[in-house]
Formats: sequence, C-alpha cells, structure tokens
Amino acid sequence: MASKPVEEIFKDYSARRIAIIRALTHDVDKLYGLCDPGKENLCLYGHPNKAWEVTLPSEEVPPELPEPTLGINFARDDVSRRDWISLVAVHSDSWLLSLAFYLGIRLNHNERKRLFGLINILPTIFQVVTDNKPIKDNPTMDSGSKFRGNTELKERQVIDRR
Amino acid sequence: MASKPVEEIFKDYSARRIAIIRALTHDVDKLYGLCDPGKENLCLYGHPNKAWEVTLPSEEVPPELPEPTLGINFARDDVSRRDWISLVAVHSDSWLLSLAFYLGIRLNHNERKRLFGLINILPTIFQVVTDNKPIKDNPTMDSGSKFRGNTELKERQVIDRR
Repeated sequence: MASKPVEEIFKDYSARRIAIIRALTHDVDKLYGLCDPGKENLCLYGHPNKAWEVTLPSEEVPPELPEPTLGINFARDDVSRRDWISLVAVHSDSWLLSLAFYLGIRLNHNERKRLFGLINILPTIFQVVTDNKPIKDNPTMDSGSKFRGNTELKERQVIDRR
Repeated sequence: MASKPVEEIFKDYSARRIAIIRALTHDVDKLYGLCDPGKENLCLYGHPNKAWEVTLPSEEVPPELPEPTLGINFARDDVSRRDWISLVAVHSDSWLLSLAFYLGIRLNHNERKRLFGLINILPTIFQVVTDNKPIKDNPTMDSGSKFRGNTELKERQVIDRR
C-alpha cells in the first residue's frame, strides 16, 4: 500500500468527483439509459482523468481499490428518476471518500485532517444534484469553463425533472 | 435517506470499529480460519452491537448501506499473514468511513467537519494492527475493560506474528 501525499489524493478525488457530477447532470440521460435493470450488476465509476463509466465491477477480488456501489441499475425503475439520481449521488460520495482515505492510509492525524478539510470545502455530489447549489470547485483543480458548463447543465436538469 | 445526528453516527462508527479491531486482534485466529479462500466471496462486517461477522455480501443490490470489501478470503493465502491483516484493516477503515458519511449525507459542512474530527481522534484500524499503538478509544463510547482487553490481546498478537 503506497503512501500518497494529501495534494495528490485530493487531486484524484476532485477529478473523480467532477466525472460523477457530469454523469449525474450533463450526461444524466445517457447514464440513465446505460443503467438498464435488465443488465448485470453495474457500477458508476469516476476516473482520475475526469471520465465516468458505467460498467461491471472489478473482476479482481478483493479489488485493488475500494469499489463503487454495485447494482445501481437494479434500483433505477423502483424509484422516481429524481430519487434514483440522489441514491447514486449518495453512494458516489461515500465511495469517493472511502477511496481517498484508502489512498491516504499512511497519512498521520494532521494530514488526514487536512485532506478532509480540502474535501469538505466542496459541496457533496448529493448537494449538487439535490439542492442545485453552485458547484464551488477549486478553480486550481479544474478549468473555469468546465465549472460553468456543469452548473448550467445541472440547472437544466433540475428543471427537466420537475 | 434518513438524517442522523453526528453523535449517533459516531457511536455507530465506534462500535463497528471496536468489532473489527477485535476480529483483527483478539479473534484473529478465528477470523483467519473463517476466511477460507475455497469459499465464496466473503466480507468482514463490524456491527453496531460490537459483534463482527464474516459472511457473504448483502443479497440486496444496490445494498441498503455501503458494503465492506468483497473477497477478503481470496487474498488470505497470497500474502503473509501480517500483510493480509493489514489489507483487511485498510479496507475496513475505508468501509467504516464510507458508512459514516453515508449515514451523514444530510449533515452540513460544519457537522461533517465535527464528525470527521471525532473519527480522526481514534487511531485507524490500520494503525492499531500495524503500529501496535494504544487504542485510544473515547471512554464514553466503550467500557474501560474492553479497552484494556483489546490492547493486551493485540500486543500478544503482534508477538505471535514475529
């Protein structure tokens, strides 16, 4: 288990978070279509290159890294679209946090505090998709255009849902 | 998704953590025996009643709560006993954190900060099983006798591993 510095872990966290926010806002129709309950157990991954992916879980068990929640597709048609998006958001927040502190397992008390402080500056994915709060991403972690793009498209999505 | 107060989430976290520390220290021989690589995918659960359990993952997908890492038994014979215990510890820390913040999804910024502050006072399970640091549990969360019991038995376990 390698030790990564706080900034590197936070960069990984931020990029994966952006990917998942995009999946649940701008790309939500595509995400919804991909999460067919007739398919096998699917997971929503946010990758460090800011891409998202819906795919089967890692074949490697135990996995190299903590895995996102399994079978999000099975819940899709059991609840409203809005509730399903919230559910995926909550599980994604939970996964990203588990991943960040898995990567930071060798951090000391103060480093863990600092990492959590950085993470906690950002609204959770759940807040972003439910409250329609502005996405206050750290501008050093992502470009301004992506920031604005996400916000605008999220607003449209909220209107669509009503 | 119900909203739980910080103290309740931390109590849940602490109890599950105690359960897993016991599994990885006092009860480690039993845990080791149960995690037979010839069996199906197994998970180590720490329950809020401070009991631990090695069992198959939840049949419900997506699960009601974030699940611990799957298939810890498959790794058992691939690495040293010490490394396997560390691996399970790291995944368990990661799971407990994901669970705490899943339960606290509706907490605001300051409440999340407070929850993490409480969690971060305790050494991680990984620290407990690798560094043999004293288990500085909050005495209000658990009895002194259990605290001492864990520490003494963990020390014995460390000697056994050498």
